[in-house]
Amino acid sequence: MSLETVLFRVDGTLDAALDRLFSLLEIPSISTDPAYKSDCDRAADWLVTDLTTIGFTAEKRATPGHPMVVAHGGPEADDLPHLLFYGHYDVQPVDPEHLWDSPAFEPRIEETDKGRVIRARGASDDKGQLMTFIEAMRAWVDVHGSLPCRITIFLEGEEESGSPSLIPFLKENADELKADIAMICDTGLFDGKTPAIVTQLRGLLAEEITLHGADRDLHSGFYGGMAANPIHVLARICADLHDVGGAVTLPGFYDDVPELAPELKAQWDMLDFDPMRFLADVNLSNPAGESDRTPLELMWSRPTCEVNGFVGGYTGDGFKTVLPAEAHAKISFRLVGNQDPDKIHAAFVDFVNARLPEDVTCDFGNGHGAPASVMSTNDPAFETARQALSDEWGVEAAFIGAGGSIPVAGHFKNILGMDAMLIGFAKDDDRIHSPNEKYDVQSFHKGIRSWVRILAALSD
Amino acid sequence: MSLETVLFRVDGTLDAALDRLFSLLEIPSISTDPAYKSDCDRAADWLVTDLTTIGFTAEKRATPGHPMVVAHGGPEADDLPHLLFYGHYDVQPVDPEHLWDSPAFEPRIEETDKGRVIRARGASDDKGQLMTFIEAMRAWVDVHGSLPCRITIFLEGEEESGSPSLIPFLKENADELKADIAMICDTGLFDGKTPAIVTQLRGLLAEEITLHGADRDLHSGFYGGMAANPIHVLARICADLHDVGGAVTLPGFYDDVPELAPELKAQWDMLDFDPMRFLADVNLSNPAGESDRTPLELMWSRPTCEVNGFVGGYTGDGFKTVLPAEAHAKISFRLVGNQDPDKIHAAFVDFVNARLPEDVTCDFGNGHGAPASVMSTNDPAFETARQALSDEWGVEAAFIGAGGSIPVAGHFKNILGMDAMLIGFAKDDDRIHSPNEKYDVQSFHKGIRSWVRILAALSD
Repeated sequence: MSLETVLFRVDGTLDAALDRLFSLLEIPSISTDPAYKSDCDRAADWLVTDLTTIGFTAEKRATPGHPMVVAHGGPEADDLPHLLFYGHYDVQPVDPEHLWDSPAFEPRIEETDKGRVIRARGASDDKGQLMTFIEAMRAWVDVHGSLPCRITIFLEGEEESGSPSLIPFLKENADELKADIAMICDTGLFDGKTPAIVTQLRGLLAEEITLHGADRDLHSGFYGGMAANPIHVLARICADLHDVGGAVTLPGFYDDVPELAPELKAQWDMLDFDPMRFLADVNLSNPAGESDRTPLELMWSRPTCEVNGFVGGYTGDGFKTVLPAEAHAKISFRLVGNQDPDKIHAAFVDFVNARLPEDVTCDFGNGHGAPASVMSTNDPAFETARQALSDEWGVEAAFIGAGGSIPVAGHFKNILGMDAMLIGFAKDDDRIHSPNEKYDVQSFHKGIRSWVRILAALSD
Repeated sequence: MSLETVLFRVDGTLDAALDRLFSLLEIPSISTDPAYKSDCDRAADWLVTDLTTIGFTAEKRATPGHPMVVAHGGPEADDLPHLLFYGHYDVQPVDPEHLWDSPAFEPRIEETDKGRVIRARGASDDKGQLMTFIEAMRAWVDVHGSLPCRITIFLEGEEESGSPSLIPFLKENADELKADIAMICDTGLFDGKTPAIVTQLRGLLAEEITLHGADRDLHSGFYGGMAANPIHVLARICADLHDVGGAVTLPGFYDDVPELAPELKAQWDMLDFDPMRFLADVNLSNPAGESDRTPLELMWSRPTCEVNGFVGGYTGDGFKTVLPAEAHAKISFRLVGNQDPDKIHAAFVDFVNARLPEDVTCDFGNGHGAPASVMSTNDPAFETARQALSDEWGVEAAFIGAGGSIPVAGHFKNILGMDAMLIGFAKDDDRIHSPNEKYDVQSFHKGIRSWVRILAALSD
């Protein structure tokens, strides 16, 4: 009955757990903006202190960027697993700030049509999520006096800014961090009620290009029609990246993209996913992208190319008939299967260069990339965890894909040689990276309970 | 010998004329930015005061925007012409300010490889130019005690912001402003040494469009590949506006574009224009645009389409994998012959709408347009002025076209029923609308002398 006792403890101490989460959410740990460097540091300190109260040996570890938090606890035994838990304490910027209904770093509980929510930047991505496993461990220790197995906690502060320190840190501390399996809490429920373990994740290649034409902005009355316009060239490049069917036209782009395994496709086809509702949530009504693929395939197992930013010429109020000297774009590729970021980068450079007329040159920024990750679900721990999740949510848990890139899963595999289970409790309407981010109180509460069940099942 | 006396007077008082110009250049009369409204007003006051000292009856006349300056002077006589002189006292914004080598509104004389120049925003466009005719009249009055013929001066303060008050003002004051012919001083020398009268001007249609997709910025990891990306759609629209040969693809765009008259084409082919040098001035080396046209045709008698501004998504430092809710572009068309701005606008709206996928909508801004102007050079005044210019510069003056749009010439024709001679002394390297705008002291000096000769010839 010890499992029930711990779950009962979780239920009875939820308000105190929310108070702790609020303390963490109040710290504006925006990793992309140097102005918030000390706040990132403060968030790491807060976590070290909190983990120490549960009995962990916790430390803030310096990097050239924001610090890592590493904590160790629990009994070592041959018949018990060693689990590594990962989350990140940094958050996205809040702009545009005026679209927030309440201040981003003043967390509050709100009653909504769909239940109670925690409103704050980072509530869902990822502070609310990482606190689910910390609170589960606290409740376990409160009831049992110690953790159920050996646990290492590894929390990052640069996830939203490309994790520049992550690979060197994993390499330097590989012996200390390697465990039997990693638990990454940075993903979502499948459809708001069905728990899920992500077993495949798309990779990401981010490219920045700046096209240069004349050495100054020109008056279009004199030079218009005679001088190359970098906006035209960049628009042509961006337009050429997709064909009319929505497929990416980069040569060789699909070479290393596998077709979905039939059994996984069958499982995905069974999932209760309504693409119309998913789109209606953001006021859209038609799936774009490759026209011959199902929406879940598009999101989880097909690569994409998106222009995330484009700027050139005069963009203020009114009009200026200028021929700009330069134009800039940020373009990202979501990668799947065996697509190699370096190979795609090279193809992209060729693609752009082939479209530059004389008189237009291109600077390529430091594109950073990570390949996709596909887990070996043969490990029985996956099925054990899936059952524990099903028990908590009263719904059969699913093995799914994820459209977002969580490069750390790939790095755990490549550098530490361990697979990862990606289990999280976010919902599609959490508005992560957008104004008015939220996390359901239910996600937080049942998330904690889920981890209690998983800890119990894996150390049984 | 009276002409020589006036020219001698111009030469002897050049420093004082430069001082006056500097006083006007120091006023930051940026018409596009409401923050400079009182400066526009101050520039108008300065001109009224200055014209009054020459003997004009001068007034500042209010409009819903920036004021007009209207001045009358000189003897009325049946055998003497009535001339209307036009210029504009407003200037372009100075951004990007950090690219100026000296403050934009602290005019200074600089010695350069190519001679002495006046460096300031507005030095060439158009304060330096309008002061050439005012200084010519001042010298004439100094020597003769009165002007050589009836003269009306009409100075505008909204030329750089689309002249919203111009048409109503011309209509309301048509009787007062109508003259035998207009002299517009807002154009350039042909090649830095050959004076020119512009007899045809391109028109302009300016369009602003904003494309809307989802009702918020989306995370491309979740929605990438499924949600319409307004940047992609806008890039496709911009790319589709030209074919591979550089021609504009808008249906019907060339319907009302006449082929150049053979005699004018022959005259233009004789002109000493080196397109490679023209492009080399701005660090380019290849003519873009319609590949089957000569560079002068491209600049003067062919219509164009240029994207002057494009912005969408995240454009700051670093990367944000966002699918933006909207994307915006400013697109302008240079018009020639009988191209009708309203008809082109309608074709553009259809062109854009035909390229909007479901889920993407477009807001069209208030596109403003003016047709091209072609003067009737049969009027002997054109030949008289051409001869006067040839005498001053020692080079045969040319009838040429102009790539920029000076809509006022069309309005003078349509509303006041008079042709215009466009005579100016700017050079191609004056960097108008760009940082470090300048006007050659030679342009200013010989410009004044040119007007003295033209006044003498036309009132002989």
